[in-house]
Amino acid sequence: MANHTGSFSFTALQPFQLPTISKFKIGLCQLSVTADKNKNLIHAHNSIKTAAENGARLVVLPEMWNCPYSNDYFGKYAENFENKGSSPSFSMLSEAASSLGITIVGGSMPEWENGKLYNTCCVFGADGKLKAKHRKVHLFDINIPGDVSFRESDIFTAGDKITIVDTEMGSIGLGICHDIRFPELAMLYREKGAHLICYPGAFNMSTGELLWELVQRARAADNQLFVATCSPSRESSGSYMIWGHSTLVGPNGEIIATSGHEATTVVAEVDYSAIQHQRGCIPVLNQGRGDIYKLIDLHQQKP
Amino acid sequence: MANHTGSFSFTALQPFQLPTISKFKIGLCQLSVTADKNKNLIHAHNSIKTAAENGARLVVLPEMWNCPYSNDYFGKYAENFENKGSSPSFSMLSEAASSLGITIVGGSMPEWENGKLYNTCCVFGADGKLKAKHRKVHLFDINIPGDVSFRESDIFTAGDKITIVDTEMGSIGLGICHDIRFPELAMLYREKGAHLICYPGAFNMSTGELLWELVQRARAADNQLFVATCSPSRESSGSYMIWGHSTLVGPNGEIIATSGHEATTVVAEVDYSAIQHQRGCIPVLNQGRGDIYKLIDLHQQKP
Repeated sequence: MANHTGSFSFTALQPFQLPTISKFKIGLCQLSVTADKNKNLIHAHNSIKTAAENGARLVVLPEMWNCPYSNDYFGKYAENFENKGSSPSFSMLSEAASSLGITIVGGSMPEWENGKLYNTCCVFGADGKLKAKHRKVHLFDINIPGDVSFRESDIFTAGDKITIVDTEMGSIGLGICHDIRFPELAMLYREKGAHLICYPGAFNMSTGELLWELVQRARAADNQLFVATCSPSRESSGSYMIWGHSTLVGPNGEIIATSGHEATTVVAEVDYSAIQHQRGCIPVLNQGRGDIYKLIDLHQQKP
Repeated sequence: MANHTGSFSFTALQPFQLPTISKFKIGLCQLSVTADKNKNLIHAHNSIKTAAENGARLVVLPEMWNCPYSNDYFGKYAENFENKGSSPSFSMLSEAASSLGITIVGGSMPEWENGKLYNTCCVFGADGKLKAKHRKVHLFDINIPGDVSFRESDIFTAGDKITIVDTEMGSIGLGICHDIRFPELAMLYREKGAHLICYPGAFNMSTGELLWELVQRARAADNQLFVATCSPSRESSGSYMIWGHSTLVGPNGEIIATSGHEATTVVAEVDYSAIQHQRGCIPVLNQGRGDIYKLIDLHQQKP
């Protein structure tokens, strides 16, 4: 872009590259989560299969799809993903991905490792192999008096890095629920070339109504990329009432597909050429003032 | 906040201070802008007076309230604010502020200085004195084929700094229209203790419908502070069709008051204690991961 005034320099142009597969269907499995883990695995497997049968090549699961969302359950339902024999949830996702030939962003599950508990999202390629693992970096500690109170940090250890993964379906940034409240995460993913950010999440009734749609549309529009969210359904067990409304948002902040609060499988089309179009029309990513502010990825600063 | 895992450190607590006046009425003057500058000054003066008569102690004007929004007009209507005798717009705002005893965020006006043209917002205290001047830092260059095309950078020089000003009505961060598309600006204002960010703006029909409400709600909710926007009315002259919808948003992203697209004066209550409440309930500002990312104010790095 020409800048005849010469008074400042724009941020360096982001090279945008379309992945080989730039147009495909995504499935969002808004699952009903019960206190029966086996049932949860069956629900998830059925919904993943439904999505694939309807053409989805990328399938996203909700936060805590194999375990009720409660500090009383996370430890009991957790698995050690290193030990495949004792990790039925991990194994089911891996097998579903390879047998259906699809990429799976496996929502989140409680994970044990070295005596610590994490809220973890695993991504599987179409060969069934684990491609990436994101541990929730912003734990959900809130206290709205007379309404909802939750302290994940009483139970979980937070992840210590951001996670972006190259898949057949483009470059995907990962966040889990409360991670979506932090614009920095999405901005770093955009800088690293993400086409899509997936946020498995389980917003509650209060923050859900007010903020769930707003924050996902904001992350998409501010960064001109796709955002997919996936939540458990409202009737999921536990005292924590879940908002639902799994949604696909396009790079102009527009809602492409969404659901109500019931268990359902949303299948919708992603077309990454919309990112190119949008960034061409309103080139905000090239208009940032790199001479005034700069967002630093502190991990990249380290050797 | 306790963090028993010891695996990371939260961003340092932001000390939040209520200003002496923490509850007051704000006025948003959604003005009809014509090609007759004198008429524009009269419209603005009348609306400011109406707001003050309805109790407003802080009044916000639209972007380019004294000049049609067009590259053909900006140069002709521009004033040099240093030369009071030839700056009727500047003088009117200063006199209105002192005679009514209110703080005015004077929208924006085209400004000449040293042969350069700026899109500038002036803030006046209740004594009529200029308290701050913000020059739009992100110029509006867009090209949506078959819809709207605009290149402010053909005419304007961009400002080179962010602007936050302490007033009787709290600490106010300033942005002009396209500045709102850049989350970094709002995040820096939040870090510097802003209670309110004012964005005079003139979104068009396309970006207005899709993004105007979204981005102001996002800036407010992400930073848990108040956002006030003020636009010219739709019937303002010129080929550039304006969206309107001047709005006050609270720290949970909630719309407190808004307008349609006609000329009007919105008066609504700001209560900064809502910021305190919101930050107490959902302490996102203390949950940021200062060990993973950091937003740098590059000007603060300089001596």
